[in-house]
Amino acid sequence: MPDQIETRTSWLTGEELASVRDKVPMVYVEALPVRVDDRGSVTHVGLLLRVRPDGSLSRTVVSGRVLHGELVRAALVRHLEKDLGPVALPRLPPCPAPFTVVEYFPDPSVTGFHDPRHHAVSLAFVVPVDGDCQPSQQSLDLAWLTPDELADPVVLAEMSGGHDRLVRMGMAHVGLLH
Amino acid sequence: MPDQIETRTSWLTGEELASVRDKVPMVYVEALPVRVDDRGSVTHVGLLLRVRPDGSLSRTVVSGRVLHGELVRAALVRHLEKDLGPVALPRLPPCPAPFTVVEYFPDPSVTGFHDPRHHAVSLAFVVPVDGDCQPSQQSLDLAWLTPDELADPVVLAEMSGGHDRLVRMGMAHVGLLH
Amino acid sequence: MPDQIETRTSWLTGEELASVRDKVPMVYVEALPVRVDDRGSVTHVGLLLRVRPDGSLSRTVVSGRVLHGELVRAALVRHLEKDLGPVALPRLPPCPAPFTVVEYFPDPSVTGFHDPRHHAVSLAFVVPVDGDCQPSQQSLDLAWLTPDELADPVVLAEMSGGHDRLVRMGMAHVGLLH
Amino acid sequence: MPDQIETRTSWLTGEELASVRDKVPMVYVEALPVRVDDRGSVTHVGLLLRVRPDGSLSRTVVSGRVLHGELVRAALVRHLEKDLGPVALPRLPPCPAPFTVVEYFPDPSVTGFHDPRHHAVSLAFVVPVDGDCQPSQQSLDLAWLTPDELADPVVLAEMSGGHDRLVRMGMAHVGLLH
Repeated sequence: MPDQIETRTSWLTGEELASVRDKVPMVYVEALPVRVDDRGSVTHVGLLLRVRPDGSLSRTVVSGRVLHGELVRAALVRHLEKDLGPVALPRLPPCPAPFTVVEYFPDPSVTGFHDPRHHAVSLAFVVPVDGDCQPSQQSLDLAWLTPDELADPVVLAEMSGGHDRLVRMGMAHVGLLH
Repeated sequence: MPDQIETRTSWLTGEELASVRDKVPMVYVEALPVRVDDRGSVTHVGLLLRVRPDGSLSRTVVSGRVLHGELVRAALVRHLEKDLGPVALPRLPPCPAPFTVVEYFPDPSVTGFHDPRHHAVSLAFVVPVDGDCQPSQQSLDLAWLTPDELADPVVLAEMSGGHDRLVRMGMAHVGLLH
Repeated sequence: MPDQIETRTSWLTGEELASVRDKVPMVYVEALPVRVDDRGSVTHVGLLLRVRPDGSLSRTVVSGRVLHGELVRAALVRHLEKDLGPVALPRLPPCPAPFTVVEYFPDPSVTGFHDPRHHAVSLAFVVPVDGDCQPSQQSLDLAWLTPDELADPVVLAEMSGGHDRLVRMGMAHVGLLH
Repeated sequence: MPDQIETRTSWLTGEELASVRDKVPMVYVEALPVRVDDRGSVTHVGLLLRVRPDGSLSRTVVSGRVLHGELVRAALVRHLEKDLGPVALPRLPPCPAPFTVVEYFPDPSVTGFHDPRHHAVSLAFVVPVDGDCQPSQQSLDLAWLTPDELADPVVLAEMSGGHDRLVRMGMAHVGLLH
């Protein structure tokens, strides 16, 4: 999930959002961008590279909040475009059900999925992208890794908040957990 | 979805909840309680019978809000017990992904799923129940209908807010859409 | 399912296939070809129009056998190309799990899904197609119907073997059962 | 998968089955038996312990062929009873779709899932069992392992044919991949 409040697109001020966060779970969407071959098999997974507040590097998936009045699909497209650029050409799955639901809590011991900011219920999707991806200003880079490379403990250790598990659950979903 | 604020279990006053509802989508869970045979095939679906504010009768599924700090599974169990009684013995599916995600809006034209109170993102599950079901005070009755009976337009017309579609989507999910 | 043995692509003679059909269930794949908008929502479903042996018309989905040694994905691509032409550009979902499994029997009373030729276990997928579709010689036409049009009893009555149910189960899966 | 032909329940002689195996893919079902808590969360996975022809030990899941004329659900129940005994009380999921489809080939390089006997298309399910499990004569033992224990490379190395991957895909499906 992004490390800052989405002030550009949110209909709430930071203060309003802070107030709401203590009262109800936030609805989130998360997407694993993937490259697929002509039979639909995943060949690469895209991970964003970001700088954490402490200066260390972190790999993460596409993620963000669903706004009041916004459709889940619209939120997915918005966050994919925000993180991968306007010509990524994401291919959202026609089914509205996510492959898994991830529950983030400020207390990492509840589910192992951790977000210091709030309780979030996140709908996770695998999204093939066909176009050119240009990581946004918030990201240093977008790296396309093969399923083999994703099984590397060094790569997995560069993710935080449980995203390493989320990525592996996505690989299992597409039949490519190594 | 219940026609009143869940004052007993909610950690929010009605005023606080009203304020939050205008700012972010609410997280909901919905369950189709089903009876299954020894091969897991659905034989009956349970629908609650309620009196609407205008005095007419309405059939509905088990539904309710996920509270701040509450796990989706805990919310499902809580609402199943609230609507079906303490000895219904619901068997939650081990997979956290819902069979579909339903998006309710105050404007019925957005998705066809309608809730006059708020924008809600609802995770829908089919839940086998083995025990005795005692509908709560909020419900007049719990009726167990066969897949054939559920295809009856008269029965479907007794549901509102798009619940007729949700029930048929559940039947399709279990392979029994007639 | 096609009304004739796939003599072109099969590695079996008709006699061999007839012999095998009495001994084990056949593995089939079925695809609902769909057009989607830029958010992944299904706008149209493609149905093939065929002439039955008795001269009547029948609407059907893409369907066919998985050959010995053939991957399920390869069978899906092969049958989609056979029925929709070589430039249909099908986008197979990255997940290997079908949205449902349909069991066809010569006896229509077993599951309601009927194939006079054999017992078949069919993996059903919803497959977005982006390219130009040219129905094969076996089909008179390929019609693109909206979810609303697919709810028309007249259209549903033009399908046989339970395909009307399969199509509606596919619509339920993508959240568009009307 | 069992290491021998199912001569008791099969409607084919070994010779007939051998002949068919070279002509079409076999339909299989596989089940991960699990213990769940009262919220449906998986607490333990059951693995069968068997002696391989070479005398070494192997852990495996419940697995077997779908017979001609047999429903997938009936095959699942039959193989669960065969491997776990008559009072295991398996709770088959009401949805007919498997959580994944595994394709076994005599050539281990095709998918990584390997069966020296034949090409099999296997529908995999997670099945909660409530009753007492008594491993059959074919098995030395049935061990109930926690999700943590299942992540142990030593345990995973005791499975063959790709079953270690299948078990981890099942754990990912239920949200408990560690």
